[in-house]
Amino acid sequence: MTATALPVELADIAAALGRKVEGDPHLLVSGVAALESARPGDIAFVRSPSYSSLVQRTRASALILPDDVDPGACSAIRSPHPALDFARVVERLAPPSRPLPGPDPSAHVAADARVDASASLGAGVVVQSGSRVGARSILHPHVVVYPDVHIGQDCVIHAGVVLREGTRIGDRVVLQPGCVLGGDGFGYIADEVGELRRVPHVGRVIVEDDVEIGANATVDRATLDETRIRRGAKIDNLVQIAHNCELGENAIVVAQSGLSGSTKVGRGAVLMARTGSAGHLAIGDGAFVGARSGLHRDVAPGARVFGSPAWPERRWHKAMAALSRLPDALRRLRAVERELGLRGGSRDQGDDGGPAGE
Amino acid sequence: MTATALPVELADIAAALGRKVEGDPHLLVSGVAALESARPGDIAFVRSPSYSSLVQRTRASALILPDDVDPGACSAIRSPHPALDFARVVERLAPPSRPLPGPDPSAHVAADARVDASASLGAGVVVQSGSRVGARSILHPHVVVYPDVHIGQDCVIHAGVVLREGTRIGDRVVLQPGCVLGGDGFGYIADEVGELRRVPHVGRVIVEDDVEIGANATVDRATLDETRIRRGAKIDNLVQIAHNCELGENAIVVAQSGLSGSTKVGRGAVLMARTGSAGHLAIGDGAFVGARSGLHRDVAPGARVFGSPAWPERRWHKAMAALSRLPDALRRLRAVERELGLRGGSRDQGDDGGPAGE
Amino acid sequence: MTATALPVELADIAAALGRKVEGDPHLLVSGVAALESARPGDIAFVRSPSYSSLVQRTRASALILPDDVDPGACSAIRSPHPALDFARVVERLAPPSRPLPGPDPSAHVAADARVDASASLGAGVVVQSGSRVGARSILHPHVVVYPDVHIGQDCVIHAGVVLREGTRIGDRVVLQPGCVLGGDGFGYIADEVGELRRVPHVGRVIVEDDVEIGANATVDRATLDETRIRRGAKIDNLVQIAHNCELGENAIVVAQSGLSGSTKVGRGAVLMARTGSAGHLAIGDGAFVGARSGLHRDVAPGARVFGSPAWPERRWHKAMAALSRLPDALRRLRAVERELGLRGGSRDQGDDGGPAGE
Repeated sequence: MTATALPVELADIAAALGRKVEGDPHLLVSGVAALESARPGDIAFVRSPSYSSLVQRTRASALILPDDVDPGACSAIRSPHPALDFARVVERLAPPSRPLPGPDPSAHVAADARVDASASLGAGVVVQSGSRVGARSILHPHVVVYPDVHIGQDCVIHAGVVLREGTRIGDRVVLQPGCVLGGDGFGYIADEVGELRRVPHVGRVIVEDDVEIGANATVDRATLDETRIRRGAKIDNLVQIAHNCELGENAIVVAQSGLSGSTKVGRGAVLMARTGSAGHLAIGDGAFVGARSGLHRDVAPGARVFGSPAWPERRWHKAMAALSRLPDALRRLRAVERELGLRGGSRDQGDDGGPAGE
Repeated sequence: MTATALPVELADIAAALGRKVEGDPHLLVSGVAALESARPGDIAFVRSPSYSSLVQRTRASALILPDDVDPGACSAIRSPHPALDFARVVERLAPPSRPLPGPDPSAHVAADARVDASASLGAGVVVQSGSRVGARSILHPHVVVYPDVHIGQDCVIHAGVVLREGTRIGDRVVLQPGCVLGGDGFGYIADEVGELRRVPHVGRVIVEDDVEIGANATVDRATLDETRIRRGAKIDNLVQIAHNCELGENAIVVAQSGLSGSTKVGRGAVLMARTGSAGHLAIGDGAFVGARSGLHRDVAPGARVFGSPAWPERRWHKAMAALSRLPDALRRLRAVERELGLRGGSRDQGDDGGPAGE
Repeated sequence: MTATALPVELADIAAALGRKVEGDPHLLVSGVAALESARPGDIAFVRSPSYSSLVQRTRASALILPDDVDPGACSAIRSPHPALDFARVVERLAPPSRPLPGPDPSAHVAADARVDASASLGAGVVVQSGSRVGARSILHPHVVVYPDVHIGQDCVIHAGVVLREGTRIGDRVVLQPGCVLGGDGFGYIADEVGELRRVPHVGRVIVEDDVEIGANATVDRATLDETRIRRGAKIDNLVQIAHNCELGENAIVVAQSGLSGSTKVGRGAVLMARTGSAGHLAIGDGAFVGARSGLHRDVAPGARVFGSPAWPERRWHKAMAALSRLPDALRRLRAVERELGLRGGSRDQGDDGGPAGE
């Protein structure tokens, strides 16, 4: 498949990027595509010389590529940042469709809500008492905004998103379908007779500018203060952020990861997919947490950790390599013991039978 | 609990299955149930002789069972595939209720959308510009269909499902409540000043015939081309399928698993619950990935792998058994060293203190 | 941030708790806050003497605290259960806003549904044929109730929740936004020609009194009987409970955990975050399952297990500590072998190359 748009001259694309054309400046570009699936008329990009063989086979008409790759028969735009420039071209040639400004007649807007006239509210959108929606923000169908929620400018909030009371959303925030912000934090106390009583959660969720949150992700409100997602942070699908967490500027949390309560993630830290963190931890600025890691303690700024429990990268890889050799090592250990007349190489306990925990 | 239906003669049930009755062909069957909870009038099934003691205690009136199980006092239908035949009986005796054809008055259908007259659109359903809904498909309340989505025939799309723009859905597809198809893929590039810029995702999601997708699962659109779920694949609740993945025919992905971008899963492969996969991998036809595995590399066709990092089944089980014996082995190693006058059995480094990654 | 309410005298707060004031009984309390972020006029609580240094710095006007902590300049309410008493104060001073009773004009209520006049149905709520909603229950906007669902009294069901047909909900149940109850269980059988055929799920979900379920969590209907969440159980965000499971009274399942089909969890058991369980297991009363554990077998009542595969707590910690020392132990084993002239300390197999499963 190729995304199509009105044809535009390659020279115009290059000019918008501040780059120059090598080849035919009047070439008409009508679509954006990957190298492998491009068709004539498409523009594609080349990340590095390792893709040179794909370049020789591509049917694309134009390429954005680094200096050290031969464009073959294609017209070319040279770029020190091909992926970044290509993203800009895609945004220009294949912009997302935009609903019309104004509320759909079926939207439910409270009398005291303040919705900018340039904002777009889709079918069935609910904006409750005291809430605000800023200029040019788009709320797709069936978004539910509880009371006292502030949404900034130029946001895109997809269908089925729920923003619970008191939530604050900055500018240019993108929320994918079905994500839930401001659900009650998960906290219970046993009362005098042993019944679990809910800890009331009266804090809120604050999402700063340029944050993006994935489909069906959940961010819980704070117990008393705030759960804060700082400027530019990106959260993938099905991630769980518990009450009172703080996610640093430009931090990245990949799909299905989860942070327990009150954990702070530093600026620019990256949590790869399916990471879990205990509560009340500090994950330092620029830290990198490998996929499927389980954090039980703080992570130093800039550190790279892996595994569950998470260890420093090199230690984790050495441990896994050693584990792979362990069955053989146990045999060798028995041989040594026999040689020394120790224990006679008995099989010892080490079974795996019976219910866990007995 | 027993699902009930109009009574039907056992002979009719047997005839519909192409089987014969052993016992009373005129027995009236009025419900389907499990062996343990069946009441008189119910039909149940027996998987194998290992359930014989339950058969002796059941209150069911009729059983579907293999040749080598004694039906006791029950009338019986013998079957080489008892579970399969029972499923067919359940579908016949306890069919799901079907909403009436046609759109609910509160549904929002764009003027240029094409919805078959036999399709059912529930309250608040949204079908946007250029989208199509095929014959007899059911869209339950508040399903949101963005522009340019095609939905085939005989689909069941449950409440709150969101289908983003451009998504393609084949025939007989079942989508459980709250699943999201076509959310933007998760991809960012640092720009010249270090800010994260979104990679625009202009590809789409293609779901072929007979696919089923679980509640609150998410399947992201491709960057440029397509994310494809092939014919007959089954995806469980809360699964994440990232941009540009491909799931093979009749592949099975169990609950809370996740595939990172561009991973291809072969025909008939099975990913058990909570499996995670790195991106750009190939998981072969018929491969089996154990629950909670973490895939870092390709999996050969037909292979069985376990663990995180995932290893071949036998190697994984041996490693886990060996790990269980490791603390004892370390003591034995010290004893050997003492015997040889080596190192004196010192405790060595092996601590677990200080922040991870320092 | 501080949640605010009308000012109330400290003596009134103490009286409602059945406690006494130490200090100024006429002090006007106007908000609840955490120790660190409290402002004058706020009441906060102190869990134990380990927070004494925060007490010295707090700006709160009043504290609820145990006998052995010095309240400094604050007026005080002494309590043997400070956290519990504080939760009661928060509920009183910062109660959640309540929508008006009755259905919103845009709600869709079937003619034969029975909705108590004191229940509140938000915009776009759907209550289908034969369903019931009890006194004072609140259904927030766009909740979808399929046919034959019973909802008890004093429930709070947040926006976007979907309750599939036949579901039963007790009294005082709280469902966070986007959770799905009664989706079809995940079960397929290969038919005679190898195609996957769905196992029809005609059982139901039963949720007893005082249960709370988190945002975007999923609980599947049973194949034939019931999936049951017993009285007082608490389920966190993005948890998956498969068909035919049973969760015991006051059991706790923390975020992103998953139970496979037919697993029974005992009364008061705790499954920490990201736990996974195989199917058909019994997890005993009062068992504790550590975060990220993977259960493959039954867990005894009261047992504490960790890891994947899950082991008894002490065994797991010893194994992890030993694993950390394994690379060094392998070096030491080679030294021993050299000393004895065995094997010459060869590097042996232990590689990690080639596709998994080859």
